This record gives sequence, C-alpha cells and structure tokens, in this order.
Amino acid sequence: MRVIFNEELKAVADDLDQMAQDVHKAINLAGDALMDSDVEAAQTVIDGDIEIDALESSIIDQCVRLLAKQNPVATDLRVVVASMRLATTFERMGDLARHIAESARRAYPASPIPAEAQELFGKMKDFLNMTADRLVNMLMDRDANIAEKVIVDDDVLDALHHQTFEFALDENWKGTRQQIIDIVLLGRFMERLGDHAVSAARRVVYIVSGFDPTKLPQRDEGTDID
Amino acid sequence: MRVIFNEELKAVADDLDQMAQDVHKAINLAGDALMDSDVEAAQTVIDGDIEIDALESSIIDQCVRLLAKQNPVATDLRVVVASMRLATTFERMGDLARHIAESARRAYPASPIPAEAQELFGKMKDFLNMTADRLVNMLMDRDANIAEKVIVDDDVLDALHHQTFEFALDENWKGTRQQIIDIVLLGRFMERLGDHAVSAARRVVYIVSGFDPTKLPQRDEGTDID
Repeated sequence: MRVIFNEELKAVADDLDQMAQDVHKAINLAGDALMDSDVEAAQTVIDGDIEIDALESSIIDQCVRLLAKQNPVATDLRVVVASMRLATTFERMGDLARHIAESARRAYPASPIPAEAQELFGKMKDFLNMTADRLVNMLMDRDANIAEKVIVDDDVLDALHHQTFEFALDENWKGTRQQIIDIVLLGRFMERLGDHAVSAARRVVYIVSGFDPTKLPQRDEGTDID
Repeated sequence: MRVIFNEELKAVADDLDQMAQDVHKAINLAGDALMDSDVEAAQTVIDGDIEIDALESSIIDQCVRLLAKQNPVATDLRVVVASMRLATTFERMGDLARHIAESARRAYPASPIPAEAQELFGKMKDFLNMTADRLVNMLMDRDANIAEKVIVDDDVLDALHHQTFEFALDENWKGTRQQIIDIVLLGRFMERLGDHAVSAARRVVYIVSGFDPTKLPQRDEGTDID
C-alpha cells in the first residue's frame, strides 16, 4: 500500500512540476509578447493555457483518488491538500499570462505599452521572469528558502505596480484612453501574478514546515488601489 | 465514528453558510458604498474582511482534520474537497468587495463613479446583489438549480462589464484620468466577483451531482479585455 501511495504521490508531484514549468514558460512568453510585440509568443501562451487547465483538473482528480483510497495523514496529507491548492493557484497564473498575451495580440503590430512606459513594464517583466524561475526551483527542491524570497520580494513588484498608476495619472504623458486602460489592467495582471506566486510560495512553506504562513495577519496590500 | 463525522461535516457546512452570508453582506454594503458614497458601509466591508479570512483558515483546518481522522469517501469526500475550494473562492470574493469599498472610501465624499456611469454601475450592483442572494440560497439548500442560474446568467454581467470599457473609451464623456482608472478597475472587480460566484456554483453542482462542470471546455471569457 505504502509503495503505491508514494508512487501516486510522485505522479502528482511530477504533474505539479510540469504545471510550474508551463506557467514559467507562459510568463516568459507573455512578457516577450508584451514588450517585443511578439505575436507568435502571444499565440503560444493563449493556446497553451488549455494544457495548464487540464493539468489542474488532473491533479485534483488524482488527489481526490489518493484521499479516498490511501487515507494519508501528517506530512503526506499536507502534501495532498497543498497540491490541490497549488494546482488552482497555477491555473489562475496561466489565465493571467493569457490575459497579458491577449492584450499584446489585440494591439499588434503596435505594443499596448507606450514608449514612455517601456522601462517600467520592462522591470515588471524582469521581476516576473525571476519569480517564475524561483517558482520552478522552489517546487522541484521543496525549498522553503526560495519560497521565503518570493514572499519577501513581492514588495518590489507592488512598488512597480504603484508606479503604473502614477504613470497613467501623469498629465504630462499624452496617452490615449486605450493606453491608459491597458496600462492599468496590464499592471494589475502582472501584480496579481506576483500575488499568486506568493500564495504558491506559502503552500510550499506549509508542505515543508507544516506551518501555514497565510495565518499571519496580512492583507494582499499590493492589490489595493488607493 | 460515523456520528462524529457527520457532526464535524455539519460544522464545516455551518461555517461555509456563515461565509456565504458574510460575502453576501460584503457585496451588498460594497455596492451601497460605491453608489451612495456610504463611507460607513465601506468601512464595515473593509473591517469585516478579516472575519472572512479567518473563516477560510478555519474551514481548511477542519477539512484537513476530517480527512486525517475520518477517511471520508464518495459523496462525503466530495463535500470536504469542494468545501475547501469554496472557502478559498469566498475568501477571494471578500477581497474583491473590500477593493470596491476601499475605492469608495478613497473617493469620499465624492463617488468614484461619475454621474453618466451611475446607471451602468447600478445595473452591475443590482446583478451582484441578486447573485449574492443566490449564493446563500444555493449553499443552504445544496440547490443545483440555483447554481445553474448563477452559471448561465454570468453572461449578463460580462456584457455590462464590456460596456464599462465602451464608456471609458467614449471621448464624448469628459472624465478625468482617475475616473477612467476607477471605472476600469471597479468594472473588473465586479466582473471578477461574478466569475468567482460561477466557480462557487460549479463546486455546488459537483457536491450535488459528482459531476464537475469546470471540465467542460470553457474560458473565463468575461475577463478578456479585447
């Protein structure tokens, strides 16, 4: 029984690693689509989201079967519960990467990001690519130290997100309404990607330590708009 | 053993009903805060979000204990897994209601919604109040018919959300940049509330029927911005 359980748990872990890699790729390509008007990259993200959705479904099904047949306890149970929640978080990250890609595709051959905001959005893109690398590594190695970095560094992205509002409000910049809308929504999609990465990191801390850092008093400050 | 299990499952169901009622109240009050510049309502939503967050944590803890000690199978297992996922969905709805309330508080004593957009946002508010009523009732009665209505009717909210972009893009309306930003973000928060209500409805269908309607090919079309 125990052997089967570990095999089945390993299959879930492999699918989660695959999801993290798919999300990693989606974030990288969505950033390219946005900043380089790479419409092929945009289409790859949009088409690839179906695979991410299917992996979420598959992981939850596997976890429900594991719970029914194997009655895991202690650490194994924590892993199963956290895996279901991680799958849902990654699925949502895939949606957000898709929204960014759709915005780039709509604006093609132009970029939805005006020249004056390219540097700011470039920083957000670079930050999210770093976060995507960390997500894959923290999950592969069950590394709570990397997870901790994802949680702590999210403030950097929140500060960049705040700057997107300052940019959009600055009357010295003569943008169109569509550009204002794109900046606000793309900024929010990117900031939400960071929030979900933080959620994922918290689940990994929970798996490794049994301690759920979401129980600390906190708010998702980054999503506040005032 | 069985008696204890049912008692513990009932405690989870009671907490979920409480969460649905709290979210119902948050949606109602956030709508009042937004449309009537009711800053007390806004503050109640903002302060009350902590209780919603705490209920999510409590429900997940109870479900993990149930899984560890009682090894539920079949319908009971479905209920436990769906309850965890419902709690997470409701927690997110509380966040979104809080974002709307924060926006109203920031703009007070003015409204973040300009006079010309009051009718449109009033329709979205009314729709979400109806959805909030349905959420409470579908959960109380495990009523898949109400859940079905929530899923089907979401198109109405998506169409209203689409109109918020048309409004923001219309050069005949002489709004400030802050008003454009508020309209876009508030429209999105409200549309996302509808999406989460659909997710919750799908979980209830899964509890009642064992069939997961999320497996049908579908996208969260409403969140697309093009």
